[in-house]
Amino acid sequence: MSQKIYVFDTTLRDGEQVPGCQLTTEEKVMIAKELEILGVDIIEAGFPISSPGDFRSVEEVCKAVTNPTVCALSRAVKGDIDAAGAALKHAKRGRIHTGIGASDVHIKYKFNSTREQIIEQGVEAVKHARTYVEDVEFYAEDAGRADLEFLARLTEAVIKAGATVVNLPDTTGYVLPHEMYHRIDYIMNNVPNIDKAIISMHNHNDLGMATANTIAGIRAGARQVEVTINGIGERAGNTSLEEVAMTLKVHKDLGFHTNIDSTKLFPMSQLVSQTMRMPVQANKAIVGRNAFAHSSGIHQDGFLKNADTYEIINPQDVGVPKSSIVLTARSGRHALKHRLELLGFKFDKPQLDGIYKNFLVLADEIKEVNDKDLVKLVRA
Amino acid sequence: MSQKIYVFDTTLRDGEQVPGCQLTTEEKVMIAKELEILGVDIIEAGFPISSPGDFRSVEEVCKAVTNPTVCALSRAVKGDIDAAGAALKHAKRGRIHTGIGASDVHIKYKFNSTREQIIEQGVEAVKHARTYVEDVEFYAEDAGRADLEFLARLTEAVIKAGATVVNLPDTTGYVLPHEMYHRIDYIMNNVPNIDKAIISMHNHNDLGMATANTIAGIRAGARQVEVTINGIGERAGNTSLEEVAMTLKVHKDLGFHTNIDSTKLFPMSQLVSQTMRMPVQANKAIVGRNAFAHSSGIHQDGFLKNADTYEIINPQDVGVPKSSIVLTARSGRHALKHRLELLGFKFDKPQLDGIYKNFLVLADEIKEVNDKDLVKLVRA
Repeated sequence: MSQKIYVFDTTLRDGEQVPGCQLTTEEKVMIAKELEILGVDIIEAGFPISSPGDFRSVEEVCKAVTNPTVCALSRAVKGDIDAAGAALKHAKRGRIHTGIGASDVHIKYKFNSTREQIIEQGVEAVKHARTYVEDVEFYAEDAGRADLEFLARLTEAVIKAGATVVNLPDTTGYVLPHEMYHRIDYIMNNVPNIDKAIISMHNHNDLGMATANTIAGIRAGARQVEVTINGIGERAGNTSLEEVAMTLKVHKDLGFHTNIDSTKLFPMSQLVSQTMRMPVQANKAIVGRNAFAHSSGIHQDGFLKNADTYEIINPQDVGVPKSSIVLTARSGRHALKHRLELLGFKFDKPQLDGIYKNFLVLADEIKEVNDKDLVKLVRA
Repeated sequence: MSQKIYVFDTTLRDGEQVPGCQLTTEEKVMIAKELEILGVDIIEAGFPISSPGDFRSVEEVCKAVTNPTVCALSRAVKGDIDAAGAALKHAKRGRIHTGIGASDVHIKYKFNSTREQIIEQGVEAVKHARTYVEDVEFYAEDAGRADLEFLARLTEAVIKAGATVVNLPDTTGYVLPHEMYHRIDYIMNNVPNIDKAIISMHNHNDLGMATANTIAGIRAGARQVEVTINGIGERAGNTSLEEVAMTLKVHKDLGFHTNIDSTKLFPMSQLVSQTMRMPVQANKAIVGRNAFAHSSGIHQDGFLKNADTYEIINPQDVGVPKSSIVLTARSGRHALKHRLELLGFKFDKPQLDGIYKNFLVLADEIKEVNDKDLVKLVRA
């Protein structure tokens, strides 16, 4: 039986805090409505205490969506939680996300605190948040570098205080996938009340490991993923929603599924990229301009014989119209012949050999050969 | 004792075949010289049979560099290997990279062949390549989806035929890291002559797993990594050189090192991005514009207290001048105070509270607040 993975989108919170990505309330509402159509389970809409504009955005997102839970961020501080609770007043399903640093470097340098005080402050925050909503998520910031035995004790304490979800983020993007598996496995097996809450993965991509760590966490027992469209977020970004959703879909053998409508992924990526003015690089997995473009002759030849040779995802499954073949000096006879046939030309082998030779000279010169160039070449 | 990982850069071959990325011979030579300074061990310079321009580029790269091995690609076809051998004539150290599909989907649909014929063709190709150079790398294309028992037999046969390196690529970007560990571990333990060759990782990023798979392969026994600057390459791209190099550097506990001068990574990324006209997205790990930018108030506060709270890499280690703090509506009092002090202003707490309130209103409106805006705000 396939198990459900809850998708918690934080494009509007962790993504929106990126330099240059700030959104107006209207833009946030528009994206939230599209996230609902995409099928995300939870929308983290903002950090209400941070500014009046962000407070208003959370309020408006609550009014605008029906199915997803709307989540508001707060530190483990009474004023933050009160603001989050107030901003969620109109939510059909509201969740407060509160928490505090859990690694020794955070406890010592950021909070000038002790492990025992951190547990106490976390428990108080969860209890206070529960006075506003029944659904409270606790984050143990920098969990990726926290002492595991302490992390287990902290997790147990906040679940006992009423947390329904415990988020163990790799805040600095430091952890490797085999370590992540080990860490989540440890938590699943060393927290007596672990069955009372869901463990969540929230990983950053500083070493390029965010997606792999998230999948490792799921394999070890996590059931919620915190992700953003295009992987935008602080520094090197957050885990990409599209990469996690498609990995689970391609690897059905893992035994998990999400509620994401994958055919909406590409349009969603474009919408967020344009609204946030954050270009997606051509070679971005799943949603990049070249993600389904085959350019070398070896690949084009194999692809034309059978798409399975080089494609593990059908581009239509993610909302991209079709795979593309781009003719360059690395293209082979097979791709050239295929393109010429699409243009209505048929040649025997010796003719094609002659055209191919001229094609290569042209391609070395002009790099990409389009249909107009090809017709000119053939007529010459 | 730390073990050396050989860095095989294929920016000029697998990267260069990307739509829009084609380079002139002069551009290839310029980048090759910079790759030598960066410290890569092997430069894959091109695919000589593919076009006269690419043949010439391989020749010129051979003349231009001294320390790195120069490698030329070929299919397991006599004419390809002859062209590669000829193009490498001037190399101080030359390597021919030859190979053939190893997964059943490639064997059946691309080659209309059988497993036994594939082994035979691979062995012949390696033997022929050895008549040109002593250093021959064999690629088992789509190894990530190949039958493991067959892959072990193929690996054994090509090593016996004289292959010095065996590349087991995840051509379609399908494998997950825990599977990659298992697959390489199987090869290391089921190929009797495995000590006579180096196993190489060449992973694609279709599911966002390329870097994680490469590290998993190294942990299981691979000692060469095939990478590109900025992760450019077919479709969603290849494994990023900068991510692998920095992961091994940050995780010294793994016990590996490379010859890469990490302080050259950011300038190298910029050079390749500009020469190939391929923008790097802002949140790209290690080399993106925002990779070391802290924008949320929580992060800025922690970072200013101690950089270790949010940074696992010192930006200067990868050639980025310094971390940056960007002031937005998500910024907190601590970051505002810090910036004001840099501008020469000192305020007591009530004054700062007043300025902060006005700052938030302004930031909600104009999104990013620069120094000029701040001075205006303070004077008002």
